[in-house]
Amino acid sequence: MEPPRKMVAEEELKVYFPDLPSGPLDGYRKKGTFSWRRMKLVYDNLNTIKLKHDIWTFMEKHPLFQHSEASLTLDDERNVTVKRMYAMHNEKFTAMEKIIEEPRVVQAEAEAMFMFDSSLAIKKTLTFNMFANTIRGSGRPDQYQFVEDVEQAKIGGCFALTEVAHGSNAKGMRTTATYSPEKKQFIMHSADFEAAKFWVGSLGKCSTHAIVYAMLISKGTNHGLHSFIVPIRDPKTLKPYPGVIVGDIGEKIGLNGVDNGFVMFNNYAIPKKLALDKFGGVDDNGEYKSPFRDPSKRFGASLGVLSGKCSTHAIVYAMLISKGTNHGLHSFIVPIRDPKTLKPYPGVIVGDIGEKIGLNGVDNGFVMFNNYAIPKKLALDKFGGVDDNGEYKSPFRDPSKRFGASLGVLSGGRVMITSISTNYLQKAIVIATRYSAIRKQFGAENAIEETPVLEYQQQQIRLLPYLAATFAQRIFCTWFGTVLVHMTIDNYAGTQDELAAARGIEVHALSSAAKPVCGWVARDGIQNCREACGGHGYLKASGIGDLRNENDANCTYEGENSLLLQQNSNWLLGVWPKRRQIKIAQESPLGTLEFLENVDEVLMKPCSWKTMDELIDPYNLTQMYKWLTAYMLKTTYEKVAKLKREGADNLQAKNDSQSYNAVTLSVIYGENYILNHFYKTAKSFEDEACRKVLLKMVSLYGAFLLEKHMATLYIGGYFSLDQGLHLREGILKMCSLLAPEAVALTDTLAPPDFCMKSVLGMSDGEAYKHLQNRVMTYPGALARPEWWRDVVYWDSYIPSKL
Amino acid sequence: MEPPRKMVAEEELKVYFPDLPSGPLDGYRKKGTFSWRRMKLVYDNLNTIKLKHDIWTFMEKHPLFQHSEASLTLDDERNVTVKRMYAMHNEKFTAMEKIIEEPRVVQAEAEAMFMFDSSLAIKKTLTFNMFANTIRGSGRPDQYQFVEDVEQAKIGGCFALTEVAHGSNAKGMRTTATYSPEKKQFIMHSADFEAAKFWVGSLGKCSTHAIVYAMLISKGTNHGLHSFIVPIRDPKTLKPYPGVIVGDIGEKIGLNGVDNGFVMFNNYAIPKKLALDKFGGVDDNGEYKSPFRDPSKRFGASLGVLSGKCSTHAIVYAMLISKGTNHGLHSFIVPIRDPKTLKPYPGVIVGDIGEKIGLNGVDNGFVMFNNYAIPKKLALDKFGGVDDNGEYKSPFRDPSKRFGASLGVLSGGRVMITSISTNYLQKAIVIATRYSAIRKQFGAENAIEETPVLEYQQQQIRLLPYLAATFAQRIFCTWFGTVLVHMTIDNYAGTQDELAAARGIEVHALSSAAKPVCGWVARDGIQNCREACGGHGYLKASGIGDLRNENDANCTYEGENSLLLQQNSNWLLGVWPKRRQIKIAQESPLGTLEFLENVDEVLMKPCSWKTMDELIDPYNLTQMYKWLTAYMLKTTYEKVAKLKREGADNLQAKNDSQSYNAVTLSVIYGENYILNHFYKTAKSFEDEACRKVLLKMVSLYGAFLLEKHMATLYIGGYFSLDQGLHLREGILKMCSLLAPEAVALTDTLAPPDFCMKSVLGMSDGEAYKHLQNRVMTYPGALARPEWWRDVVYWDSYIPSKL
Repeated sequence: MEPPRKMVAEEELKVYFPDLPSGPLDGYRKKGTFSWRRMKLVYDNLNTIKLKHDIWTFMEKHPLFQHSEASLTLDDERNVTVKRMYAMHNEKFTAMEKIIEEPRVVQAEAEAMFMFDSSLAIKKTLTFNMFANTIRGSGRPDQYQFVEDVEQAKIGGCFALTEVAHGSNAKGMRTTATYSPEKKQFIMHSADFEAAKFWVGSLGKCSTHAIVYAMLISKGTNHGLHSFIVPIRDPKTLKPYPGVIVGDIGEKIGLNGVDNGFVMFNNYAIPKKLALDKFGGVDDNGEYKSPFRDPSKRFGASLGVLSGKCSTHAIVYAMLISKGTNHGLHSFIVPIRDPKTLKPYPGVIVGDIGEKIGLNGVDNGFVMFNNYAIPKKLALDKFGGVDDNGEYKSPFRDPSKRFGASLGVLSGGRVMITSISTNYLQKAIVIATRYSAIRKQFGAENAIEETPVLEYQQQQIRLLPYLAATFAQRIFCTWFGTVLVHMTIDNYAGTQDELAAARGIEVHALSSAAKPVCGWVARDGIQNCREACGGHGYLKASGIGDLRNENDANCTYEGENSLLLQQNSNWLLGVWPKRRQIKIAQESPLGTLEFLENVDEVLMKPCSWKTMDELIDPYNLTQMYKWLTAYMLKTTYEKVAKLKREGADNLQAKNDSQSYNAVTLSVIYGENYILNHFYKTAKSFEDEACRKVLLKMVSLYGAFLLEKHMATLYIGGYFSLDQGLHLREGILKMCSLLAPEAVALTDTLAPPDFCMKSVLGMSDGEAYKHLQNRVMTYPGALARPEWWRDVVYWDSYIPSKL
Repeated sequence: MEPPRKMVAEEELKVYFPDLPSGPLDGYRKKGTFSWRRMKLVYDNLNTIKLKHDIWTFMEKHPLFQHSEASLTLDDERNVTVKRMYAMHNEKFTAMEKIIEEPRVVQAEAEAMFMFDSSLAIKKTLTFNMFANTIRGSGRPDQYQFVEDVEQAKIGGCFALTEVAHGSNAKGMRTTATYSPEKKQFIMHSADFEAAKFWVGSLGKCSTHAIVYAMLISKGTNHGLHSFIVPIRDPKTLKPYPGVIVGDIGEKIGLNGVDNGFVMFNNYAIPKKLALDKFGGVDDNGEYKSPFRDPSKRFGASLGVLSGKCSTHAIVYAMLISKGTNHGLHSFIVPIRDPKTLKPYPGVIVGDIGEKIGLNGVDNGFVMFNNYAIPKKLALDKFGGVDDNGEYKSPFRDPSKRFGASLGVLSGGRVMITSISTNYLQKAIVIATRYSAIRKQFGAENAIEETPVLEYQQQQIRLLPYLAATFAQRIFCTWFGTVLVHMTIDNYAGTQDELAAARGIEVHALSSAAKPVCGWVARDGIQNCREACGGHGYLKASGIGDLRNENDANCTYEGENSLLLQQNSNWLLGVWPKRRQIKIAQESPLGTLEFLENVDEVLMKPCSWKTMDELIDPYNLTQMYKWLTAYMLKTTYEKVAKLKREGADNLQAKNDSQSYNAVTLSVIYGENYILNHFYKTAKSFEDEACRKVLLKMVSLYGAFLLEKHMATLYIGGYFSLDQGLHLREGILKMCSLLAPEAVALTDTLAPPDFCMKSVLGMSDGEAYKHLQNRVMTYPGALARPEWWRDVVYWDSYIPSKL
């Protein structure tokens, strides 16, 4: 055999990947038929390998990056994440020059951080990149000073779009920015708590500046000060009512026996009858009436009866303001906290949203504005805004296009999340596979040793399809991340032709499908890994619980999965009637629409492959997926059309064809693309030994995905009789063929041991030794609890009835 | 209409369930077509309702049971759980008299506790019930003093079966109890860390006594003291090596500059070359050789060269002992800690296994014994043990039957877990459904208000099948729990006839299937609830993350799900060849084998129902499940037979027919029974309005389950053409019919608000107000972090390169 072209030598790779420690995994490692180092080149290259190596070496040597033994408190977790973030940012691992030279380093850096700690990666991205990129994309040159400041870490940014009551439905958002031409200011205001910006990453404790999306409105009118009896705290518990923020103003020079306080309201509703309206107020219909003609006289009179204040109720003076008009959602750079003291500016109520299911190193926050004025020059108005006199102008005629352009920075998030969820799955599958290889249970009657659980069929099917999926997704995500960087570079360079526009649309469509697909596969795969590790998988020290909790966020943020799929299916449904005219090369530069080639003929023919081997052949599987994708698009289109014929409007017809139709369609569209991409990459990979194993994984991945849609293959008449049975047999066969390769494949996927944070998944395979060490040295593990008296003398605090 | 027989009046129920607070859920509540209070009677009765009410009222009024705002530390979580446990135990809510009068109170009490806090429920059960029940079941009357002591909370129990390296495979366990006739003692010993008892609930910090399962072995021989050079700590890090427990003996009267220490070894392996064997030792084959004939001279010589000690290496003197013979696993009452001081006894190394994914109020622990002697009278030897002279005796001839009898207490655990997992799902579905009813997003173009997300098809299909499943499982588990109590009472009373024996076997088989089925449905349902709540579902304050993390344990403990299913399928495979002879009434008293009636004829006929309405008819669905269960049993049996014909032994043949066969068979067997039980209960329920809604839920539950096996219906030739399509349409139809009932159904299922621990799922529907209150009053939410200087002056600890 000739050595394949351009192949990186094993010796070059050994510099970065020294031999793994010898131990219980040796047996399986010897079974692997390929070089685990060279297999890395199916998604990495020497540049990305070197960068990741540099980052991991930096971390491993830095005291800040050493893991603690026990769980940290929420506050400590945030603190250590902040410190690591500055340490990482300070290293400038991926400066702009490097990115232009090798776009893949962007994702490699993210991967290196996510493999270590996802909170760190997310926090750093939000504080620096997303803030700066939004200003680069939507701002004017005079605003680039903020980019420079954040890059030098003089300020810290965040991105505030989601509100308490609205996320995906941006039109429903209610934060307002009212322009005041007199002062050339925008008055930022949050009508109530439901309008508070919420979930804003890095805002809870740290950010000094936020990109805030707010409705641009004109001013309303003011009926002047009026007084009301306002309930403040529940007289039974002294807890403030929701909507009331009340507190003490702190120590004074004297008179400290009196608790002087402050109170703020957030659209806090009180019954009309609590208005002290003897001298003026609205009637039940909202019409204003007063016995005084002169408002100042009315006001004077009202002050005459001022009744004082107490801790459960207050007399409050407030303005009555009517609403102005709305120019839609616009973005603003809003100063939140003083960069020198981290104290919030007056008018800004900012806080932390508390503990989450995972990612607790990130301080997600909320912010409410209380008629908070910012200078006009802080509006990111490149795509539209008011002039000094308050007149509205925009280069876009269609407001939705303006809004889309301002949100351009979000599309990248979805692409990144496909990779993030795959990172989590990657770690989980390494942990579970390695542990399954060394964990021995049961076995043949007269065997000397028990059998490694990886040898059992049910263990294989829980893990190996997800091992194959990890490769499929890792390959796909790496490529997709690079597409995104190219796109961003082209955007900055202004090279926007028709093909680039088509690519932009297709990236949006593909990311809207691939993000849910990868997130859900990770969700199910991680859960399988957790269960496949048995009891010890339930230990915090297994690391799998954290991976599950962290991946969980991927199913929701940057677009809830089901909603994203609807964006994808809407696009596909628009394409279907044009399927015969479409020019794939021009209109689908990424090739996601290739399944439409000869689609009407494809849909006519049932599956001709009958034997197990035919049914799990990689190429054949791509053809079966082609049929399935086309069939789902056709039937979904027909269902929508039928509902419309029956009288439903477009919105209703689409809503009523989601389950089993549009949702499934978009999942299959995503799977189809990832499978084809995996197949193409596998069959063209230079190293023959690796290629053979990769093609086996293509088989297993494709067959495993297809099996989940098998009922549809029968309903659509594509499968009949025993084909499904043989496909299932094929899956089991591929599992048994891949089991001996599994440990070597995890060696390819695994980050360095110090990133794994798992006693079960270390490269030496000594799970029980690591478990022992962890358990025995856990702080206080062997100590009597300080509260031991509560056990022995329980009747000292509970009068015994026993 | 006549009032149905024996129906409890609405007024009686109102005593326990007052009207729910008015608010945003009012609209949906009015849509419900039935009484949510009366619906409770489908699984509760006035006794269980009253008991739960008493328990919850007790908790709600007790300061110990008030929730904290922020997450507790691991240590505080354990502490508060301990206090609550004693407070609950002290109340004696379910004394034995009550149980005999009304067996359902056992499960009702557990339910009330699980709805409040699962750690409390588990900790209490382990400390008191499991310990006492094991002694009642396997002990002798003179051991009942321990039962009395634990009931009076003078001591605290636990149950130690699982070891680090073995759980389900009990034969692989390695804790030993060596009998010494001279001293009439058992010497408990753990060979190494892998043999440590592990995961023992309540042992980590609290238990004073443990039920320990250990191999009963006879003594080996001793070659006397020899010395070795033993590496203790890594010279680079000073961390002890795994297998070495080393520490300081603490302050002395003087000479405190010297760190006197202790060291223990746990089968810690060192190379043979480190033996100081100049004066005697083994050769490479293990044969003993010494230049001295008199061992005392050899020993004297060895002391002459004593080389001292240091902190990284020690000269250690140790005995050489050979192995004895093994009488199998037996249980013992083992004193662990002094009940007056909670200090472990010498010879016992006991500790906490650290943080878990969930259930952290329970202090799971490990214990290793170091030649720890206990008196012979502590052996639980009712089913077998040694006499005073060490001679072995057992009333059972078959050792596996003896072992089975001693583990009888475990079968109850599985029955309980079906209910526990359903409890978690119950809370999650209440949270997600209520929040989906008040959360409004998007809507028709010109609508005044946005649409509640519960109206969207994709939201319905994520939630409503699981709402139906919750009812199916709640009904099933309540019944199953009662079967278990009856069985236990009969066992204590000694009424063991053939029917009772058949029932015992069937309970084992059914629990082995139902536990995985209910645990996995809860797993998937809770996950759907999490995602259906969008971003706020990811807040810790939503409560869903904790439910997921807690239910996760159900998939593993008391028998890993896949392994349990194998126990079930092994039983079914044994039944299949006898299917024509079997007398269902006698051999399947619970009726789980009713699907075998006329099975050969059933399997001949394809499904005759073609329309959507036929396909989702409750009765028809039970018939389709009958076919499916039978088909899976037949094809699995045939696959095993085929593998055997091809040369596999029984073990191998069964292992190779797990995936898509035996595993699926047992899942379907469990689903089939729960579905039938749901159908029978629904159609005979007295209240007509409730009955109608229940039957709709039977349809949805059955069709939703069946849909997941639809490919098999086609492969088996039972379905053809459009039947699958119509079944799916039927599912969507049932979802839309049940959506208006959903909120009233959650009112039936919901525990009191203070048990919910969820800002999204309260009965007043004011999710955003509760969220606001929670976020705003979270400790430190609005405060500047103490580490704010680490943000502003980051270059003080990281030299800036920017």
